[in-house]
Amino acid sequence: MSRGRFVAFEGGEGVGKSTQGRLLAESLRARGLEVVTTREPGGTAGAEAIRTMLLSTEGEGWGARAEALLFAAARADHVEKLIRPSVARGAWVVCDRFVDSSRAYQGGGSGLSDADVMQLHRIGSAGLLPDVTILLTVRPEISAARLAMRDGNAADRIGGRGEEYHGRVAAAFRRFAEQEPDRFAVVDAEGSPEEVHARVTAAIDKALA
Amino acid sequence: MSRGRFVAFEGGEGVGKSTQGRLLAESLRARGLEVVTTREPGGTAGAEAIRTMLLSTEGEGWGARAEALLFAAARADHVEKLIRPSVARGAWVVCDRFVDSSRAYQGGGSGLSDADVMQLHRIGSAGLLPDVTILLTVRPEISAARLAMRDGNAADRIGGRGEEYHGRVAAAFRRFAEQEPDRFAVVDAEGSPEEVHARVTAAIDKALA
Repeated sequence: MSRGRFVAFEGGEGVGKSTQGRLLAESLRARGLEVVTTREPGGTAGAEAIRTMLLSTEGEGWGARAEALLFAAARADHVEKLIRPSVARGAWVVCDRFVDSSRAYQGGGSGLSDADVMQLHRIGSAGLLPDVTILLTVRPEISAARLAMRDGNAADRIGGRGEEYHGRVAAAFRRFAEQEPDRFAVVDAEGSPEEVHARVTAAIDKALA
Repeated sequence: MSRGRFVAFEGGEGVGKSTQGRLLAESLRARGLEVVTTREPGGTAGAEAIRTMLLSTEGEGWGARAEALLFAAARADHVEKLIRPSVARGAWVVCDRFVDSSRAYQGGGSGLSDADVMQLHRIGSAGLLPDVTILLTVRPEISAARLAMRDGNAADRIGGRGEEYHGRVAAAFRRFAEQEPDRFAVVDAEGSPEEVHARVTAAIDKALA
């Protein structure tokens, strides 16, 4: 295989993105493939530095517009230094969140339009999109229960918001999946991690067939 | 006066922007006006944090696209938290560099178009422009001599580049001034600081008349 693949996991907090990313990476490695697991915001030294600034609750915090530009800057660094070179040499990149998270979180009612978020992505990363985007969905009460089991992580700047907000985000993700059925695979993320992993693998095989 | 004014100084390294900004602020204060002096990148806590990341030469450095997004993010914070509120309460804002520096340095041949830089400014800062932009110009040998007198500052990430690069930047500034003669005042910055200051004051009075 001369060209790798770029797979992103998307969805709200507590749907199991990082668990499923890890299980997917393990199963791809078991097939003999090179796999790079990464996350956004972050994934490179520069992008992780931006992540630290973004998630900090010190000072006055960031306005919606500065925040969107910082996410796009982190993504530009991530795409240029990690994602594109990895895919180019034949590796699979498995990424926890990508541009659809910016669309759902920054473009969903905080003053920026979806078109603005995509303009930033075009300027920053030449509009790179994953080969497959796995949207993990669960009922709100399931994600709330999963989040309650975490130790503090969920209360960070991005995660620590109200139920209505998370409902809007979930609705935005579903809308993107409907608009781009060829790129998105919507996967029911309820059940055991192994059950969900089997659905993810089937969805990727189908999408890349 | 119910609304203040926003004046930016532009030009390459060593043309005297910060000296002339200080002299202008002093003369405006002597007229009884409230004056806020500031600079880019920077001017607010968030923007100064981004400035530190930008000017750092550690690690792999930033690509042109990430760099442009970081400058736009710093500007968005600066405009939202300092420039707009200051002008709204009647103060004069005197700023060392603004968006035209991004256009000249990031939009001038490093992969981004001028339209891209202005898109970032539209999304980040609703496209805010100064009431007057003072472009200070000197012959290249004069700016080189002024830079040589500084103690190390000129060798930072943005400043420490070749003569051809600085020539391209100076040409870009002149082009912007020709394109927007109502916003720009081009001021000959050779001579004593006091002589140049008198030209700056005359140019501002004329532009705002």
